[in-house]
Amino acid sequence: MTTVFRHEDRVRDYELDMQGIVNNGVYFNYLEHARHEFLLSHGIDFAELARQQINLVVVRSELDYKASLTSGDHYAVEVSLEPAGRVRLGFRQRVIRLADEAVCVEALVVGAALNERGRPARLPALVALLD
Amino acid sequence: MTTVFRHEDRVRDYELDMQGIVNNGVYFNYLEHARHEFLLSHGIDFAELARQQINLVVVRSELDYKASLTSGDHYAVEVSLEPAGRVRLGFRQRVIRLADEAVCVEALVVGAALNERGRPARLPALVALLD
Amino acid sequence: MTTVFRHEDRVRDYELDMQGIVNNGVYFNYLEHARHEFLLSHGIDFAELARQQINLVVVRSELDYKASLTSGDHYAVEVSLEPAGRVRLGFRQRVIRLADEAVCVEALVVGAALNERGRPARLPALVALLD
Amino acid sequence: MTTVFRHEDRVRDYELDMQGIVNNGVYFNYLEHARHEFLLSHGIDFAELARQQINLVVVRSELDYKASLTSGDHYAVEVSLEPAGRVRLGFRQRVIRLADEAVCVEALVVGAALNERGRPARLPALVALLD
Repeated sequence: MTTVFRHEDRVRDYELDMQGIVNNGVYFNYLEHARHEFLLSHGIDFAELARQQINLVVVRSELDYKASLTSGDHYAVEVSLEPAGRVRLGFRQRVIRLADEAVCVEALVVGAALNERGRPARLPALVALLD
Repeated sequence: MTTVFRHEDRVRDYELDMQGIVNNGVYFNYLEHARHEFLLSHGIDFAELARQQINLVVVRSELDYKASLTSGDHYAVEVSLEPAGRVRLGFRQRVIRLADEAVCVEALVVGAALNERGRPARLPALVALLD
Repeated sequence: MTTVFRHEDRVRDYELDMQGIVNNGVYFNYLEHARHEFLLSHGIDFAELARQQINLVVVRSELDYKASLTSGDHYAVEVSLEPAGRVRLGFRQRVIRLADEAVCVEALVVGAALNERGRPARLPALVALLD
Repeated sequence: MTTVFRHEDRVRDYELDMQGIVNNGVYFNYLEHARHEFLLSHGIDFAELARQQINLVVVRSELDYKASLTSGDHYAVEVSLEPAGRVRLGFRQRVIRLADEAVCVEALVVGAALNERGRPARLPALVALLD
């Protein structure tokens, strides 16, 4: 799969911290929201799965912070997929400031699906994303 | 001023709590973001004012919770203004679920401007909003 | 019931916004956490009830913001109960800055219990709190 | 420096997401708060530095999620330091569930100090931590 999913949004002022920039922890929220939108665009509904006790979880995240977002900034979060073992998925993600196309965050987030007994599960719909 | 400002957005999954609905505290964030967008649409920039040490603050909030938002819901936050004393502004706000136009939250948020010494200030731009 | 429950904690830096003070929405989190601790001290477990699909919900909140908390501040959140109709409970709450005993927030939060069909329920354990 | 700093705290219910566990993004808040407490224990005040326009920033984070925290859990966040280049500091951190000493998160967070012009700065107080 070579296309890159893109979700655009806008910084909300309560996401800034006392340094006047988006707090580091908030980028996790941005990245998660974009992953869920990406999955939804492929018919995979995180919330519906959770109600069925199939939990999509993050097992590892790596974030490089390169530039900051601040009040009023528009940004895009990109998502693309790569394999990460038999039952894991790697999400390559970038947060991009739209005004100047600066890359603010580069991330690799590795996820897995757990079934109702907490065991790793192979969801056909997820596996199909990698084809 | 009789027009109602309207900001539309979408629930993000991390905003839900263990009950599977948007956490009560998150509506404060929704309301704040919509107020700042409303002010910005009138040329009043919360962040720029904060950098000048003029702080727009909330002195009172009243929220009635009537229905819940959950994963995937689209919502609108409405904002309209009313006077609230000589140096205060009242923001009448509603959070509306777009699928069925249900009112989820009705709110009155009273704000004030404080100058660099923490004293109530009359900002001409804010006062003009009430005309 | 005349005793006042008290939960003490400390401001976390990520709770501050660009004004360098605890963001308004965060006080709602402080108040919620203290209510849950209060209920737990009386054997009422919000999370356990949620798992049984009995949801304790907030139907109304009134907050008066009187002073700010900032980085490093220690604070106490007080909780006491009052009746609020046949199936509702009123939580009188205050957030107090410990350094000078300043009242930062005064709040009234009205809650209700909903059963698995979303109907108001009278939980004997909750009702007993008012005796 | 071989001692390990340890900050203990308790999960707050609003930190859980719809899966009934602490949301991934919240661990970043836990880690940040513990780093700030660690720095403060060595006389380095993040907020005071921010007011002087010396910003301590995160340039990279790596988190491995190994077990979950849920409602009511007590946890400890450990912090120890390691060098990470001439002007960077590495914070080795772990989030530990106290009931069974399970490691929930292992993290490496790399930080830097930026001066008022946004340039990397060598803060003597920070450098001294590595001796």
